[in-house]
Parts: sequence; structure tokens; C-alpha cells
Amino acid sequence: MLDELREEICEANRSLTDSGLVKLTWGNVSGIDRDKAIFGIKPSGIDYNALKPKDIVLVDLDGKVVDGNLNPSSDTKTHLELYKAWPEIGGITHTHSSSATSLAQLGKELPCYGTTHADHFYGTVPICRALNTQEVDEDYEKNTGLVIVEHFTGEEIDPVQIPGVLQLHHAPFTWGKNASKSLENSIALEVCASMALECWATDSSIKPIPQHILDKHFLRKHGSESYYGQGEN
Amino acid sequence: MLDELREEICEANRSLTDSGLVKLTWGNVSGIDRDKAIFGIKPSGIDYNALKPKDIVLVDLDGKVVDGNLNPSSDTKTHLELYKAWPEIGGITHTHSSSATSLAQLGKELPCYGTTHADHFYGTVPICRALNTQEVDEDYEKNTGLVIVEHFTGEEIDPVQIPGVLQLHHAPFTWGKNASKSLENSIALEVCASMALECWATDSSIKPIPQHILDKHFLRKHGSESYYGQGEN
Amino acid sequence: MLDELREEICEANRSLTDSGLVKLTWGNVSGIDRDKAIFGIKPSGIDYNALKPKDIVLVDLDGKVVDGNLNPSSDTKTHLELYKAWPEIGGITHTHSSSATSLAQLGKELPCYGTTHADHFYGTVPICRALNTQEVDEDYEKNTGLVIVEHFTGEEIDPVQIPGVLQLHHAPFTWGKNASKSLENSIALEVCASMALECWATDSSIKPIPQHILDKHFLRKHGSESYYGQGEN
Amino acid sequence: MLDELREEICEANRSLTDSGLVKLTWGNVSGIDRDKAIFGIKPSGIDYNALKPKDIVLVDLDGKVVDGNLNPSSDTKTHLELYKAWPEIGGITHTHSSSATSLAQLGKELPCYGTTHADHFYGTVPICRALNTQEVDEDYEKNTGLVIVEHFTGEEIDPVQIPGVLQLHHAPFTWGKNASKSLENSIALEVCASMALECWATDSSIKPIPQHILDKHFLRKHGSESYYGQGEN
Repeated sequence: MLDELREEICEANRSLTDSGLVKLTWGNVSGIDRDKAIFGIKPSGIDYNALKPKDIVLVDLDGKVVDGNLNPSSDTKTHLELYKAWPEIGGITHTHSSSATSLAQLGKELPCYGTTHADHFYGTVPICRALNTQEVDEDYEKNTGLVIVEHFTGEEIDPVQIPGVLQLHHAPFTWGKNASKSLENSIALEVCASMALECWATDSSIKPIPQHILDKHFLRKHGSESYYGQGEN
Repeated sequence: MLDELREEICEANRSLTDSGLVKLTWGNVSGIDRDKAIFGIKPSGIDYNALKPKDIVLVDLDGKVVDGNLNPSSDTKTHLELYKAWPEIGGITHTHSSSATSLAQLGKELPCYGTTHADHFYGTVPICRALNTQEVDEDYEKNTGLVIVEHFTGEEIDPVQIPGVLQLHHAPFTWGKNASKSLENSIALEVCASMALECWATDSSIKPIPQHILDKHFLRKHGSESYYGQGEN
Repeated sequence: MLDELREEICEANRSLTDSGLVKLTWGNVSGIDRDKAIFGIKPSGIDYNALKPKDIVLVDLDGKVVDGNLNPSSDTKTHLELYKAWPEIGGITHTHSSSATSLAQLGKELPCYGTTHADHFYGTVPICRALNTQEVDEDYEKNTGLVIVEHFTGEEIDPVQIPGVLQLHHAPFTWGKNASKSLENSIALEVCASMALECWATDSSIKPIPQHILDKHFLRKHGSESYYGQGEN
Repeated sequence: MLDELREEICEANRSLTDSGLVKLTWGNVSGIDRDKAIFGIKPSGIDYNALKPKDIVLVDLDGKVVDGNLNPSSDTKTHLELYKAWPEIGGITHTHSSSATSLAQLGKELPCYGTTHADHFYGTVPICRALNTQEVDEDYEKNTGLVIVEHFTGEEIDPVQIPGVLQLHHAPFTWGKNASKSLENSIALEVCASMALECWATDSSIKPIPQHILDKHFLRKHGSESYYGQGEN
């Protein structure tokens, strides 16, 4: 069932360790088939190296496991809420990559300081609030998703233009048109967060990139007038 | 003798270098068979890549080598004292991983700044004092273990909830229910120490994680109500 | 066509990831055959691991693709302007390597703080200005090259003695007598930028290397009186 | 000729890149046969991966090449002066490893902040002065060696107890009883320099290790009463 999707998700999850984003089992990638309204996600607590496509757990948009022998990631409900709120996205990656997580611990958003950032995020990557006691008690993972959606809606941020968020005290989530693109955005976010920390240590008054350079770099890679790559975007 | 235990300990020691925690021969992992009251530990000064299960030295709780042709780690008596004081633990890892060791050099404990930490340690990882001249002269390695135990007892810290410590001027020790889990806690401690150093460089007034988030993350992975993983914890 | 050049360029591009300079597809290397006035460059958005010599796109000095089935790098016109302005150079490397890019984001030039730098760059690696709105709108990639050339001409910097630049808000470009040497200069620039950031964090008043040490190190490796290596330089 | 020595030196040089200490060709290891008064050293500008034992150049204590088809390292005369001044040492390693080189750029010595350092260096690793113009013009590489020896003699530092030095504006040199031990000291120096930079960023008033802990750690690994390892030291 959904063999190709499972293979892509498996591959993206295995890349989490190879890319240096994830230690132990601290991360997960999912991807959705919008026609079937089913997404696949990493099983909970399984080593990436041992992961096989058939281990990917398939879940419908009611949160019900529809195929798979293992427990899905403990973060499954967070992914679910993002897929339900944002029909434009096709893949989600969650990591505890160290620099992005440091920003989450510091409670600092990530302004766009250069073209590396501008190639992936059309402006500041926001930080969203932590859950309160009631939200944690009621349903931690579901409410984590709802708080992210609430933030983007409240601040009128387009999740296609800003495909990522830092959650206070926690870690980053990124997304994209499929599992593999959501992973690329996690890689970009980690590199940009690491450079921001290096820059702040040298000059805490560093200025964001000018708008016309931000426009150029984001729009040459994204949207109808993009010309980067081999035309597949 | 105790072939399975030796294999697990050998594997964990070999992972010390692969995980980036250890350079040269600066670390060791041990694991105990509580029924037989015998623990296995890395031999002293041997390269991890050359290590074979039969090289693991078996030691009883009087500190006597009961099997093995090589000298056990020079830190053997430290491991011994922890096993004697804390029957709940089954494995111990000692490294000089660079960020955790920097904290030990600085004499700074590691507060819980985020969920990465909360998934492994239920609060601050403490720093314990250095040995005095008499303690060093008498029996350095044994007294290192006793000073760690003294600290946890004196501060009423549960070693199952806080499975690690930083020793002033020295380096970290972690433990867990077996050799492999003690290694995982060393990996987590190093990542969290590295993030703390990054966070402090940006904002030295960073706040610890709120208690209700700490509770949630620790307790969803540990104890009778945990639901992370495939039910093996 | 130009098989040997393509192989060298392919090899240098593949080294971008192995060397840790580049994540995803954030970098490109080109090399020129001055006799034929044709340069080869990485195709746009292609993974380095999948790159084969025949994928290298050949472009003439009017910017016309003369051989190759793929779109050339989106930065092709930048390379073109540097090759046209500076007949002495034979290869160009562009990366977003993290420390050099942090300097570009900070708008800080890189003074020569030690012999590692002096072995590759005969003094400060300059930072050049960002493009204005009109320059971006007109032809971003071409004008990026022109702004670099303008900076070296205006400041009377010899591109053979200082084979690299940091562009404000963007990232580094380096060059050399061929593709492989341009890559070596990117590696050197990244290491020196990383050390500068480390040094500034400790002592922002660090002094540059004395002129007589700079002279010695640059000139023992470069120019008619060099004596480093096996005589091939 | 001296096949075993060449093999050991070749192996140590190849480890320079694997250990992460060296980029490009920025480092060299040598080892000496004291009976024959001949040392072997890396050829200049050769890639480590391509290095074979027969490439190691053999040099006598007058600095004359006695066997080998390649030019010896440009730093050969520096090694020569150290071997002549200090009959106790059997191997020398020179790198531009980034944290130790940052200290050299900063002009900061490396105090002993912890047991990792104490296991290899019996106190502060000193910084020695740069050469003056006359010394550079006369014989840069020879005088580099002489300045190091002058520093140890002048400050009454025992090169066996402190097997390494940082040279102002330049980089570290370490040594040991053979090529392989000199490399281990380069690895230790880099780790300790990296931790010092991390510590200083957090607390510039960090205190050195107490003398009794320094004594314990150095002496349990070195000298007649050492008990670390398998008795081979």
C-alpha cells in the first residue's frame, strides 16, 4: 500500500542521521498522499539505519493507523494537524538539530540574514509559544500542531513562503511540497540558525538582508517565475 | 563467560568513537549482570576499533578481575562504587566529550533548557566537587565514585531520574539501565551541553524549561505511563 | 568535447560536499580552457553525487551554451564576468560555506591573522557591496560578477594575490589557476573565516600577521621564488 | 632503508586528515631512528591519501636527504632543530588544526583547565614568539626550530613534560617518543584548545586545574609510576 510514498519517506528519515541533523531517534519525517488522504510517518523510537519502507506507518486524516505493524511516531498528531490545516503542504520534518534547537531554547526567531536563508524561507522564521499546562495535559502532540497553525494564522504568515517554525523550549518543524523538500528545509534552517549564532557572537546588531535581495533569491527558486534548477520546481 | 554481556559492552565501547564522543582512548563503557554480580568493562588504553568481546574484562563487586587477559580501565573502581551504591543502574559510560567536559572545566551544572534534555534527564545535571589531596593520594578512582554518590545522596537526587553528572575539572559520567542506555545518555548530555554553551554565548540569562513541559517530556519516555517507542521501555 | 576539463570540473564539484563546504546544491565550480575560450560549469540544482563529467555544461565567453543537455548553474553569468575581466584565472568556486558566509552576512572583511591565511591570500580578503535594486532587476548574476570586478579594480587589488571575495549578505567566491586550485582557496577561506570568528569571540582586538611573515608564507608557495611542493607550482 | 620507520611515519601522516586535524596539505609528521641518526618526513605538498611508505623522505642530522625521490616537507629544518636539541624525542607533528591555530593567532598560551589536558601535558602549553625580519630572511624554517628550543630553554620547560608549543601567528608543533605519540599529542592539544575557546566564551576567568589533580592525571599515564594502559608505556 502506497509503496512509493513509503520508500520516499523511509529514504528521507534515513537521511536525518546522514545529514547530521539528528542523533539517536530525535526526529521524524512524514509525507502525504493527498488523493488518498493518507500520510506515512516514521515508527516511534526505531533506529534510522534499521528502517525499511514497510516500517513506515500509514495514518489517515482522522489519526487512525490504516497500515503498519509498529507504533507511529509520538509526534504523529502534530503532523496530522499541520496536514489538516495546510492543504498546500505534502511533507513534514521534525528534528532537534542543534543550532535551530538552541534558538528554540533561547526563544529567538530567525531573521533572514543572507541569501542562504532567502533561497528557502521568504523572511523571518518565527518562534511560536510553548503550550500551557492545560494544553499539555489535554493532548500535548495535537495541541503542538494547533499552536503552530494558530501562530501562522494569527500573524498572517503563509506556510508556503515560510516553511518552518521554531517552538519555544522545544525544537524546529519544517515542511515542503513533499517529504524530501521538507527535509531540505530542515537542513537549510539548521545551517542558517548556526550562522546566526556565529554572527550574533560577533555583532549582535547585524542587519537583515535588504528586501530586494530577499525577493530575488526566493523568487528565482520558487513560484511561477523561478529559473533555478532543471525546470522541475 | 557472560558472552552476551561482553558483546553488548564491546559494541557500546566501539560506538564511543563512531558517535564522536571520544578521541584516542578517552572513554569507557561498562555493563553489569546483577544476578551474577559481575560487570564487564573496557580494557585500559586499547583502541576501540581493535576491541573484541573477549577483550572485555570481567570484574566482581569486590573489584577482583574474574576473567580477561588485559588490565581493566583505570577508571574501574569508579564504576564499581556506582554499581555498589545504586542497584537500579545496569551500565555506565565515561567520556571526555568536549562540550560536557567544557562545563566540567567551567564548574557549571547543566540546567534543563529544552525538551532534548527533558527526554533524558528529569532536571539539572549536577556538577560534583573535585577530590582533595588526601582523597587523590588514597585512592583516586575509588574516591571519584564515592564523591559522585555522596553528591547525589547529599542533594537527594535520584540517579534514575538524573542519569549523569559532571565532575569539576574532569569530565562527565552517565549511566542507565544497561550499557547501551548509559551511552545514549552520554550522547544526549553532550548535545545538551553543546547547545547550552551556544545559548549562553547569545543570552546568559536564558530561562530553564517550564516544569509542566519537563514533566511531559520526561514522563512520556520514562516510567509506568510512558508511551514513546514500541513498548520496550 | 573538452573531456579532460569536464572531468576535472566534475571532480572538483563532487569534492564540494566531501569537503564539508556545501550542503544541498549550494555551490558550483567552473574551469576554463583559455585557448578555446570555453568554460565548463556545474548544471543547476543537480546533486553532486549524481554528477558525471558529461553533465558539465560548456559555455563560451558570450555566455552561450556550446555543449551539454542541462541548464548551467544559475550563477553562470557571474563566472563569465570574472573570466572575461581576469585572463589570469582558470577556475572559480562559489560556495555558501558557513563561516565565510557568516562574514558575508556580517559585512566583515577577513584580515590575515596567520600563516594559514598567508599561504593562500596575500593579505585581507575583501568584502564587496551588495547589488542595488536596479542592478538586481537588470541582471542579478551578471552584475554580481561586475560588482566583484569593480571592487578589485577600484581598490587596486590583484586577483592573483587575493584569489577570493566575500559578497555582502551573500557568500564567498574564490578562484585560482584552475578549477582544483579555486576549490583549495575556498577550503582555505572557510578555515580562516572560522578561525577569525573563534578569535574575535575571545579577543576582538586581535592583530593581523606582521608583513614580513605574510611575505614569507605567501611567497614560499607562490611566484617565481616559491619552493613549496614538488616544483609543480 | 628503514622500512618500518617509514611505514609508521606514513601511517601517522595519513591519520592527519582522518583525525580532522589537517585540511589540504597543511601538516606533516616525522619520526627518527636515533641509532642511525636519520629521520623520515612527509614529502612537500603531497596528498595524504596518495602517500606511500617509500615516499617518506629520509634526512640525516645535517639536513641532507639520504634517501627518497621527492622534496621533503618545507618544514624539515624545523623538525631537524628540535631533534638536534632534544635527544629525548622521537617524533614530531606539525598541523594547522583550527582551535590550536586560533590560539596561536591570538597569542594566547593554553593553561591546563582539566584532566584531558593533564593526561598529555604537565601544565601550560606555551606560546613562543614570531621570528623577526632577519630570522625570516636568513633561514625561516631553521630559525622556527631554534626559537622553539630557545623558548623551552629560557623558560626551563621540559619538552618531555610539555610535548608541544604554539607559535605566535602560526600554528602548533607537538612531539613525543615516536611519530605516533607526537600525533596523539596534536589531537589532545586541538581538543583542549577547542574546549578552552568554548570555556573562555562563557567565563573568561576560568581557573586552571588544581596542582594535585594535574599531578595525578599526568603521572598515572607518564613516568615510572604510571599504571594506565597495558604496561607498554
